[in-house]
Amino acid sequence: MKIIVDKKNRKYVIHNTEFHTEKGVISQEDIINAKVGDVLETHMGKKYTVIEPNINDYIDLMKRNCSILLPQDLGLITGFTGIGYGSKIVESGTGAGSSLLFFANIVGPDGHVSSYEIREDFVKIIKENISGTDFKNITLYNQDVTEGFKEEDNSIDLVFLDLPKPGEVIEDAYRILKTGGFITVYTPYVEQFQIVNKVLGKSGFKNIKIREGNVRELEIKKNKTRPNSRMAGHTGYITFARKL
Amino acid sequence: MKIIVDKKNRKYVIHNTEFHTEKGVISQEDIINAKVGDVLETHMGKKYTVIEPNINDYIDLMKRNCSILLPQDLGLITGFTGIGYGSKIVESGTGAGSSLLFFANIVGPDGHVSSYEIREDFVKIIKENISGTDFKNITLYNQDVTEGFKEEDNSIDLVFLDLPKPGEVIEDAYRILKTGGFITVYTPYVEQFQIVNKVLGKSGFKNIKIREGNVRELEIKKNKTRPNSRMAGHTGYITFARKL
Amino acid sequence: MKIIVDKKNRKYVIHNTEFHTEKGVISQEDIINAKVGDVLETHMGKKYTVIEPNINDYIDLMKRNCSILLPQDLGLITGFTGIGYGSKIVESGTGAGSSLLFFANIVGPDGHVSSYEIREDFVKIIKENISGTDFKNITLYNQDVTEGFKEEDNSIDLVFLDLPKPGEVIEDAYRILKTGGFITVYTPYVEQFQIVNKVLGKSGFKNIKIREGNVRELEIKKNKTRPNSRMAGHTGYITFARKL
Amino acid sequence: MKIIVDKKNRKYVIHNTEFHTEKGVISQEDIINAKVGDVLETHMGKKYTVIEPNINDYIDLMKRNCSILLPQDLGLITGFTGIGYGSKIVESGTGAGSSLLFFANIVGPDGHVSSYEIREDFVKIIKENISGTDFKNITLYNQDVTEGFKEEDNSIDLVFLDLPKPGEVIEDAYRILKTGGFITVYTPYVEQFQIVNKVLGKSGFKNIKIREGNVRELEIKKNKTRPNSRMAGHTGYITFARKL
Repeated sequence: MKIIVDKKNRKYVIHNTEFHTEKGVISQEDIINAKVGDVLETHMGKKYTVIEPNINDYIDLMKRNCSILLPQDLGLITGFTGIGYGSKIVESGTGAGSSLLFFANIVGPDGHVSSYEIREDFVKIIKENISGTDFKNITLYNQDVTEGFKEEDNSIDLVFLDLPKPGEVIEDAYRILKTGGFITVYTPYVEQFQIVNKVLGKSGFKNIKIREGNVRELEIKKNKTRPNSRMAGHTGYITFARKL
Repeated sequence: MKIIVDKKNRKYVIHNTEFHTEKGVISQEDIINAKVGDVLETHMGKKYTVIEPNINDYIDLMKRNCSILLPQDLGLITGFTGIGYGSKIVESGTGAGSSLLFFANIVGPDGHVSSYEIREDFVKIIKENISGTDFKNITLYNQDVTEGFKEEDNSIDLVFLDLPKPGEVIEDAYRILKTGGFITVYTPYVEQFQIVNKVLGKSGFKNIKIREGNVRELEIKKNKTRPNSRMAGHTGYITFARKL
Repeated sequence: MKIIVDKKNRKYVIHNTEFHTEKGVISQEDIINAKVGDVLETHMGKKYTVIEPNINDYIDLMKRNCSILLPQDLGLITGFTGIGYGSKIVESGTGAGSSLLFFANIVGPDGHVSSYEIREDFVKIIKENISGTDFKNITLYNQDVTEGFKEEDNSIDLVFLDLPKPGEVIEDAYRILKTGGFITVYTPYVEQFQIVNKVLGKSGFKNIKIREGNVRELEIKKNKTRPNSRMAGHTGYITFARKL
Repeated sequence: MKIIVDKKNRKYVIHNTEFHTEKGVISQEDIINAKVGDVLETHMGKKYTVIEPNINDYIDLMKRNCSILLPQDLGLITGFTGIGYGSKIVESGTGAGSSLLFFANIVGPDGHVSSYEIREDFVKIIKENISGTDFKNITLYNQDVTEGFKEEDNSIDLVFLDLPKPGEVIEDAYRILKTGGFITVYTPYVEQFQIVNKVLGKSGFKNIKIREGNVRELEIKKNKTRPNSRMAGHTGYITFARKL
């Protein structure tokens, strides 16, 4: 995967084939030889800069069949669970695959991400989205996760759930988590995290924390500083708990 | 590094030596053989569970010479810059080393984190904090970072600055960043990000975004749900920009 | 009621009698003759300035038997209901009387505030708190409000409820409100406003809005500007609805 | 002023003349005789309910030449300054007159609001907006407020400023305020409140507080509760200070 930007900072993913733009074509040869920082030119003279490919760029540009988790929420999960290189992660549902790819990018070749998605139409799109990357640390299951996780007992660092009824799989999540491992559950609604909180407690989880993160942008225009008047009032609640 | 918890979920870092508690001693042999999930017992019968060591556990327990970045802010940086396995990161100042260790845990053996800290007394503590981990992907410089980054041109994915006057090193940060790489600057005060914003623009950075993240916890007590009445009103502003 | 401040801006309510301080006495004569802006002096020379008495000053200084509504929440209620001079208000419970006095101060002699408080021990304190003021537009009922409001049909501009189970009196509140009048219900917990929302709908109320107000203070110290790191994460939810 | 609502809760201000709607006319006689709660009918049978006129209804419906202060911000000012029946208020600029009318509605016939507006085109609209009400406690000056307030020394309870450069009139505001009186300054930008804070201190004001209020709505749809995903990220900063 390579990513190029034009002068207006619009981004494009390119693969090792000719790239067609509104203002001409970039040759396959140029694309194959391109290194980060190079400037590519179409036969009509439009210029594009090759940038270091970033997982968020790729997620921004990939196909979406549903709303995706925002960087701030993926960041909160990473920040509070301390996942990193080599972590073993299991998640469900997969949605468009944004959290799957974000996690795969962090855990690297010695880590692994398994993702369970019930909907066949989603799986098709997710596979396409995965195929544009080089990740070899992903397993995608087209399966109803309530039938049970395929992972072994005490083998997982993080279970991440983004499901309408996450409570149904919390007990099985406990089974597959290592002692010290985390579960995080993303839910838009209060009624959901209330159930999650109860089931987590019953299933033996400790350190249950329900968190809501809000990000506000500030703007400086002509030496005038103020918070942006538009912000997301809510994305979702994220419940964290630990097998201790 | 191994981490153990008692029944009240108090955490302790243990190394491969005898561990002394208020209620007796755990033998060196037991500690060396301990695996995640095992229960260790002192000679007086107090029990501790060995948990999967998590970078946040370690940061919580290590020595602190100054206030440290919170998980939500480290998470925001990770979420919006898309760093991951293999990323090359440069940061300054090091402080107690919390962001250094958090990043080292993400980028793994194929990535690298260089950190510049001017204060000799801090460096001593940071070295001690690093020595308790197994990371081999860290370089620590006891150096005034305004003398210049030692890194090569176009070699770094993320430069992270947590300095009183970050503006002084932004131009040099641009030099060492790959095309597409990010700079993020953590500043508690408005006056700081105003200068940072100006210098970033002059230095050629694009996509400048000033963000403020707030995390609120919710609590459920006896079937009563409400946001926690105590929250941090402010940690710091985080400015993001990109070399494009 | 007169209010005086010392040099450290500590406030005291004085009535038309001698005022004893740690550093001497202010004579009754001086107090009776005192006008706003005057400086009063104890016989030992300590100085106090007479200030325009403000309802918040009085509320700050009066007896408290329980937590009271904060100015920002009383302000939100005033702002969104548009109450003013001459408004007829009914409220329950009275608590320490802070909302009672705040509203009485707004509606003035042509308006009226009736307040229902079930607890006799509270009523005693409230009466004392009222007696320190000059308000003649207050009626206090030591009564269980679920027995019914004494007010006539279609006679009230605002019903304000701060009760553990506000749902029980919402239907009767509808009866006494004028067409166009407002009900506002203060509840700390989610479960409470969920019930309130349901009962309001069933009782015929329109324009139901559940709001949460947060106030953050900013500080400027030595030319460094930042939000105060301490803020209240939550006071309560305020539900507004209208008889239309 | 009378206000009527249709079945969809759309509001209309009516005066003592015939009222023309898309679906017929309500006669002048019906309008003159109408009391709160009555249902008026056009000659074509469309029904409207007469509601208790609320100052916010009127402000919502009046002419606007510029953005107006929101109820939550007017509420914050009322809540923290404790203004009420009989208060003497001075404000500038007038804008469309929303704060002018909101304050006039609170202070009543024994209070007074003076408002200074420099722009002649604004004054024309404001006069029209005032003329639709019955307030007799308003004085409007078409004057550059930097020429000085016309009010006497020590006579005012609250000075409210919503000006691009409020610092220029703060010293004169101090003069006209009673001891104990408040100044509040609404400013969208950080740079503005920084100057205001400095000038307030130099002018002798005490208890300087810079506040930012945010209101979030919650929604319950089909038994699913969540904060509304859209909220205003920022309206303005409100600086409060007191003459003590």
